[in-house]
Amino acid sequence: MVLLNENERIDQLYSNQIQIIQSSDVFSFSLDAVLLAHFAEVSRKDSTKIVDLCAGNGAVGMFVSQKTRGHIYQIELQERLADMAERSIELNHLGQQIEVKQLDLIKTFDYLEKDSIDTVLCNPPYFPNTPDSSRNPNPYLAIARHEITTDLDDILEITSGLLKMKGKTFFVHRPDRLPEILSKMVNHRLAPKKIQFVYPKEGKEANMVLIEAIKDGNAAGIRIMPPIVVYGANDEYTQSVHEIVYGN
Amino acid sequence: MVLLNENERIDQLYSNQIQIIQSSDVFSFSLDAVLLAHFAEVSRKDSTKIVDLCAGNGAVGMFVSQKTRGHIYQIELQERLADMAERSIELNHLGQQIEVKQLDLIKTFDYLEKDSIDTVLCNPPYFPNTPDSSRNPNPYLAIARHEITTDLDDILEITSGLLKMKGKTFFVHRPDRLPEILSKMVNHRLAPKKIQFVYPKEGKEANMVLIEAIKDGNAAGIRIMPPIVVYGANDEYTQSVHEIVYGN
Repeated sequence: MVLLNENERIDQLYSNQIQIIQSSDVFSFSLDAVLLAHFAEVSRKDSTKIVDLCAGNGAVGMFVSQKTRGHIYQIELQERLADMAERSIELNHLGQQIEVKQLDLIKTFDYLEKDSIDTVLCNPPYFPNTPDSSRNPNPYLAIARHEITTDLDDILEITSGLLKMKGKTFFVHRPDRLPEILSKMVNHRLAPKKIQFVYPKEGKEANMVLIEAIKDGNAAGIRIMPPIVVYGANDEYTQSVHEIVYGN
Repeated sequence: MVLLNENERIDQLYSNQIQIIQSSDVFSFSLDAVLLAHFAEVSRKDSTKIVDLCAGNGAVGMFVSQKTRGHIYQIELQERLADMAERSIELNHLGQQIEVKQLDLIKTFDYLEKDSIDTVLCNPPYFPNTPDSSRNPNPYLAIARHEITTDLDDILEITSGLLKMKGKTFFVHRPDRLPEILSKMVNHRLAPKKIQFVYPKEGKEANMVLIEAIKDGNAAGIRIMPPIVVYGANDEYTQSVHEIVYGN
């Protein structure tokens, strides 16, 4: 029996039947998480170790669990979000495969060994820390969206520290920070290998970017994958995004 | 009377009636030059000063001349290409507006003052210098395509030196070098502001990238412009590229 707290609901990702406990009050996954999970390439092997950093309510790791028999560690600072992730894992009977650790990611190495992870997934806070006045007044959302308790440099340092040599990481972020993201990845021994831009509609500027990087990979030869366009002329999902979300 | 040398032909850009002397033996402009000229934003004012670096047979500067009353300086190392550019300028009666300087770009400041230029355009050699064996055996083409006589660092140093504060530069390059291009721009005080990727066809990876940067601009807030897709399902230009090339 999974208990829902006040103002929580259960949303479903139709393409793989995963059910996620959501709450607009504290956190709800959106297309970013779905596209990141779709973009991520993970090994199917039992021995694969995957970390979902800044896991929020656990959506990314739960979606990715359907592509692998490997073990998934979810690290989330906010107690209330980690608790939602725990209950969603129970709801989907994924307790054998996924474990949630409520933890400041700076303490990751108290819990996981360095150089031990095959794949790190991350949907980090997108926005630099800004004065209180321009942040979301809801503290849960402010921490999830703004670099208040962590920042890109810390996250990339943890990511690089976790990964085995040639291990891969997959990030979703905002394209307006692209030069900074790429140069910080390189500074942290993460060689960007594939980039895919997400455009809300034909003729519009990109509002999301997916990035794959390899630890200690060769610096040359990044690939810019075909664009993803989210909505068609009728304001419904394009065929390719519909397939990602609904499986058909 | 313009004289054509052996194996030279005259190609026309239909959107603006500019005629360019070309030769497959030494250099011919291609879609890269057309898209760069289209992407570049230049002031119409008489007082505008524009530099076309690595000008080749002068196509980019000649196309851009139709968008401004400003003066255009074309710098090209290879004597034979600079000579083709001279004759094309004559053919199009653009001698009042465009001047070609056959020059190693390292000597640019013998000819042009530092911090004096509004806009720098550049379609540079795309490929790192490689062993002789894998270069084009034609030396004209090898120099135009490979970083033999110059490289990205030199070109960006000259570009930054030429530009006034807040002056703009527009580059076309290969997306597989994107992280390097962005970080080298930043190192040379050029803040990337807009990026546009060019995809040969729907579902294919990008094979060209257009980048706008501003000297001493704010580092934050790069914009990823809508994708350009060159060919449609029937292997003909898409409507948007047809308009750029043919004007309709």
